[in-house]
Amino acid sequence: MKRIVLFVVVLLLNLQFLRADEGMWLLNQLDQLNLKDKGLQMDVNDIYSPGKISLANAVVNLGGASAELVSAEGLILTNHHVAFGAVQRASTRGTDYLTNGFLAKTRDEELPAPGYVARILLEMKDVTDRVLKGIDGIDDPLKRQRAVKKRIEQIEEEIENGRSDIDADIASMYSGQKYILFKYQRFEDVRMVFIPPRSIGNYGGDIDNWMWPRHTGDFSFLRIYMSPDGKGAKYSPENIPFKPKRWIKIAREPLSEGDFTFIIGFPGRTNRYSTSYAVSFAQNYYYPLAVKEFGEIINLLDEIGKESPQLAIKAVGTSKWLNNGMKNYQGNLEGMKRLNLLGEKQKQEQELQKFINSDNDLKKKYGDLLAKFESEYRKSAQTFERRFLLERFNYLAGTIPGIARGIYGTASERAKPEDERNPSFSEKNVKRTIQRLKYRYMSYAPEIDKALLKRMLLRIKALPEDQRIKGLDYIFKDFASVDEFVDYAYANTKLTDVAYAQSLYEKSLDELNKSDDPFIKMARALQPETEKLNKEREERRAVLNELEKQYIEVLMAWKKRPFYPDANRTIRLTYGKVSGYSPRDAVWYEPFTTLHGVMEKETGKFPFIVPEKLKELYRTRDYGQWVDQNLGDVPVAFLNECDITGGNSGSPVFNAKGELVGIAFDGNWEALTGDWKFEPVIQRAINVDIRYVLFITEKFAGADYILKELGI
Amino acid sequence: MKRIVLFVVVLLLNLQFLRADEGMWLLNQLDQLNLKDKGLQMDVNDIYSPGKISLANAVVNLGGASAELVSAEGLILTNHHVAFGAVQRASTRGTDYLTNGFLAKTRDEELPAPGYVARILLEMKDVTDRVLKGIDGIDDPLKRQRAVKKRIEQIEEEIENGRSDIDADIASMYSGQKYILFKYQRFEDVRMVFIPPRSIGNYGGDIDNWMWPRHTGDFSFLRIYMSPDGKGAKYSPENIPFKPKRWIKIAREPLSEGDFTFIIGFPGRTNRYSTSYAVSFAQNYYYPLAVKEFGEIINLLDEIGKESPQLAIKAVGTSKWLNNGMKNYQGNLEGMKRLNLLGEKQKQEQELQKFINSDNDLKKKYGDLLAKFESEYRKSAQTFERRFLLERFNYLAGTIPGIARGIYGTASERAKPEDERNPSFSEKNVKRTIQRLKYRYMSYAPEIDKALLKRMLLRIKALPEDQRIKGLDYIFKDFASVDEFVDYAYANTKLTDVAYAQSLYEKSLDELNKSDDPFIKMARALQPETEKLNKEREERRAVLNELEKQYIEVLMAWKKRPFYPDANRTIRLTYGKVSGYSPRDAVWYEPFTTLHGVMEKETGKFPFIVPEKLKELYRTRDYGQWVDQNLGDVPVAFLNECDITGGNSGSPVFNAKGELVGIAFDGNWEALTGDWKFEPVIQRAINVDIRYVLFITEKFAGADYILKELGI
Repeated sequence: MKRIVLFVVVLLLNLQFLRADEGMWLLNQLDQLNLKDKGLQMDVNDIYSPGKISLANAVVNLGGASAELVSAEGLILTNHHVAFGAVQRASTRGTDYLTNGFLAKTRDEELPAPGYVARILLEMKDVTDRVLKGIDGIDDPLKRQRAVKKRIEQIEEEIENGRSDIDADIASMYSGQKYILFKYQRFEDVRMVFIPPRSIGNYGGDIDNWMWPRHTGDFSFLRIYMSPDGKGAKYSPENIPFKPKRWIKIAREPLSEGDFTFIIGFPGRTNRYSTSYAVSFAQNYYYPLAVKEFGEIINLLDEIGKESPQLAIKAVGTSKWLNNGMKNYQGNLEGMKRLNLLGEKQKQEQELQKFINSDNDLKKKYGDLLAKFESEYRKSAQTFERRFLLERFNYLAGTIPGIARGIYGTASERAKPEDERNPSFSEKNVKRTIQRLKYRYMSYAPEIDKALLKRMLLRIKALPEDQRIKGLDYIFKDFASVDEFVDYAYANTKLTDVAYAQSLYEKSLDELNKSDDPFIKMARALQPETEKLNKEREERRAVLNELEKQYIEVLMAWKKRPFYPDANRTIRLTYGKVSGYSPRDAVWYEPFTTLHGVMEKETGKFPFIVPEKLKELYRTRDYGQWVDQNLGDVPVAFLNECDITGGNSGSPVFNAKGELVGIAFDGNWEALTGDWKFEPVIQRAINVDIRYVLFITEKFAGADYILKELGI
Repeated sequence: MKRIVLFVVVLLLNLQFLRADEGMWLLNQLDQLNLKDKGLQMDVNDIYSPGKISLANAVVNLGGASAELVSAEGLILTNHHVAFGAVQRASTRGTDYLTNGFLAKTRDEELPAPGYVARILLEMKDVTDRVLKGIDGIDDPLKRQRAVKKRIEQIEEEIENGRSDIDADIASMYSGQKYILFKYQRFEDVRMVFIPPRSIGNYGGDIDNWMWPRHTGDFSFLRIYMSPDGKGAKYSPENIPFKPKRWIKIAREPLSEGDFTFIIGFPGRTNRYSTSYAVSFAQNYYYPLAVKEFGEIINLLDEIGKESPQLAIKAVGTSKWLNNGMKNYQGNLEGMKRLNLLGEKQKQEQELQKFINSDNDLKKKYGDLLAKFESEYRKSAQTFERRFLLERFNYLAGTIPGIARGIYGTASERAKPEDERNPSFSEKNVKRTIQRLKYRYMSYAPEIDKALLKRMLLRIKALPEDQRIKGLDYIFKDFASVDEFVDYAYANTKLTDVAYAQSLYEKSLDELNKSDDPFIKMARALQPETEKLNKEREERRAVLNELEKQYIEVLMAWKKRPFYPDANRTIRLTYGKVSGYSPRDAVWYEPFTTLHGVMEKETGKFPFIVPEKLKELYRTRDYGQWVDQNLGDVPVAFLNECDITGGNSGSPVFNAKGELVGIAFDGNWEALTGDWKFEPVIQRAINVDIRYVLFITEKFAGADYILKELGI
């Protein structure tokens, strides 16, 4: 009963930026959080302290996601959906590991997870002074931003010092108030150890995605390998398991409702300090269009997938992330409206404006700040549809057109004087792109590619006159139809061959300009408008970044308490209790789901197929040590109050003692707008319970030796 | 947490027929229930005792539903959906009371609810001996059944003794083990006092129907009138408000979770003692076909309703009950499968068979009982589709064809020797049918009727050869198409005129056989097969009834504890605590919903439109005395563990002291199979909280004088 009252009361309060337990904190801010008072039962310095080996060193950055070291021999845990790409690629070679799962019975059987890069934090340091030295004086936002980027690259290169297994990343915090260096060791030999079958690891699939109650065993065991001399290295049969300095102990005490927990991981992006103008743009332009476009492509892929199982496997990866994105956008849209985020932001800005106006110095410095935001976003909305399509052409128009554009774009950048190049261009990146090219071809199928390109070209053709993409006019003029062009292009390109595509990356712009390949020609036709667009975007970002920096400055002056920076793929800590929530009137979601619930959801149809072996374990109640006495059942997933977002997938969930109790894998639907605003009453992280991980590993897969390696 | 454990444990137990709180008890069984121990705080004899005025006398049978007397001047409360038909009929005359609601500011303004019949219990008595005297010796089930029916009619007529306001109903209990007489006073002048707008009384509409959490203010105030000399009478301006001997006091103490409650009402039908063969027939034949047919008709009506608001109003009543039925069947189907009802029944029958076989006398009497059931249901399934369509022709093929068949069927019965007639035929019933005919025409519209008839004829045309309805062959032979026949029939019938239809009820079979009316001709064409079908059904029912009687006999011998009879539209009591439930793993439904939840569900689109006035009351928190301190809000609906079914709609919900705390209006979706099997862990009654009724009456409608009449 009290829960309902609480919900109403909280909604009625005028919530400000920061509330109890909100925040994705930098590891060097932990001292400000009084974690001991909140329930932490370990030394906060053992979570992170500069120069000391601590828990943070056992948290792994795995591609865009997170993972954690759980043994002395480089064993890591992450989500099934994080390992999904590797499993998918391995499955195209014969055995369907997606459906059946994969278990290496010996080290020798561990299969490479090609393309997977694990990075382990070595050091973290404030380098603001070094980055901004001499740059503070530059007034023009674009020039200033470029100078900052260049300076960052210089420092990064200096620190990496030519070592291929060291990554130095300098990240901007609070829109450029601070710059923090993150130094990682980089490992490109990651192997699959145990992947549960999709009917466990992806149980509930897209239907349950973002949803609670959840019954997904969303975990996988991988292993990091290093060169025999202890360096991060590419795959080689000579490599040996990585020997970390620190790994995470598995909790042996049961986790319960109300327990203190924390999560360390690599959250991707949040917009917690955005203005009403940014919210309005997202709500009225960005999300609605993205939902429409993604939805159309998903339907298209679904249709193609029905033609054959091979095509379905090729399409599933793309379909999965589009679905994920679309559901995210839809949830954000609904949530923004439900929470009246726009109205709330507007109200807050009125108060902020009053605060600014109350002081002459502030007024001078920030008086027209909000008006400037308004003007920027108004401009931005004007030709948004054209921009959306052109910017996303590379990944929404098919594999080959995207690759062709990558090749042509690379040559174009190379042809420029160095200081006019796109700051993110570097030969190092080009080399990586070339190496990774083969993974992109793994999901290529001509049927899918053609359908995507046709759709995109028809969309472009239908743009209003003032948003025309002129470079492509030749297609609509020279060919009888879009279909004719697409058929012609795929019949006459050589880019369907990986080696050929890789070779083109070495060509100069002049050489490419002579190419007859229809896709290189199309890329060339799009290049001038793309460059113009890129330049405009860079300028807009620079201007907005400057405005955002000022906005946070004045917010800090106004609110006078600790601020965590927006998520930006850097390592963060968030904490909170194990706790259910009320999604709506008279409904209470308990914080734990159970194996019983897995059975309850079974329909026998994908994604609700339960493996026969699991049913047998349930029937015979063969739960071993993994039954929770309170639940009378094996726990499957749980909720806690932690503040996470995309990128946190695979993050370790710790109990008060810093032991592993779960793996974060999702947020709840009701709090999808969490990237914009943390709602403590309804925002929850969804985690797979470590006991389910171990139950499946031991009882379902019979992999006792993994448990042994974990020290169990 | 404990809730989940409980759920699992209960599912794992092998549940038998009777568990705590199960049962729709006859009022003369209350002594067996130890209600005081369970929480009742009043004398059980004040609920019901023969010859004494008690609570039971304040419970009203209202058509097929229930209601309760709440004032000394005949004011009754029932559900909005029970009053729906009256409101709909009143709305066809101009003002749209469905949408706007209706409030009589004075007695004079109270509008007749034509067709509504209220009956108040005068007496209840076991008459088994009288009914069965001399009949017990008849062996043939059909002959026996006819003899029983005739005997019942004789006794009923004798008791009614020509008084038009007395109804005597003798009901068979335990498939004919017992016969109980219910004597009612009958009132045909019922008037509308306060009907909330549909946006309150039907908030959530068909979407929320059967669902929890529920936010429907499903109540209406009506008033019973009597003749100035105190008799039940038809509507007359001379009539005066009924002065009951007993009415129900409104509870003034707040209702809370865990409180003891009970419900008295008129549950319709249950099949608690049915065999696995009946379950199998329902699961594999009856429900699937009914869902398909109803679904098709609902879609058809939806399409027609889009053509005009007038057509939509005409269609809404039919659409509503079809939807209600369809959702019920679907829920039953799903639930039967989920609970594995079939498997459970089969297992129980194996045990029962063992029990029977263990004793020679039992074996002799009941040894082949289950085999006989099997044989009956196998036969029944053979031409089920044909039977379904022919039996439901009268109400699924349109108003006029149904009326024509009623007319022809009446004449056919009249033409027979008295002892060959259908036992339910009587001139008294014919007279009532004629009087009520006008109400059937209120939902008649040619567009709807034609579409329904076309659909039905096409269905019949498509039946397999061995299920042909031969009587209609002439339509498919003589007319170029079904469309042509239907257009011809409606262009040439006079039955669209009520008076004409009424006049045909007086005609003899010979006269009707000479009629040119296309619908009378169609009725005549269907009659031979219908009579054959009716005869077969009567025989099948007689045989099954005999088997069912034996089945309950042997169950009683086996289980040795009190049995309540299946629901059969007679007055019953059920009790249980106010309590939430877990619909699925990790989800808990609280037992109360609130006004906040009403607002939360608002979409602005039907059926989730909230009246502006109600929003204002919410905004200003103008809740008066109706706020619940625990909830911090106005309660809207609540759950209790009572065992109810269709027919209980409108039943009073009492607290431990016998005061009114709510009005039952629905059961929950998860327990739709409740008619087959009571599941204590998930079966709940859904009730509108009396405080919401009074809040809406006082604060929304400003009808303080109603509160005054209630003694508040």
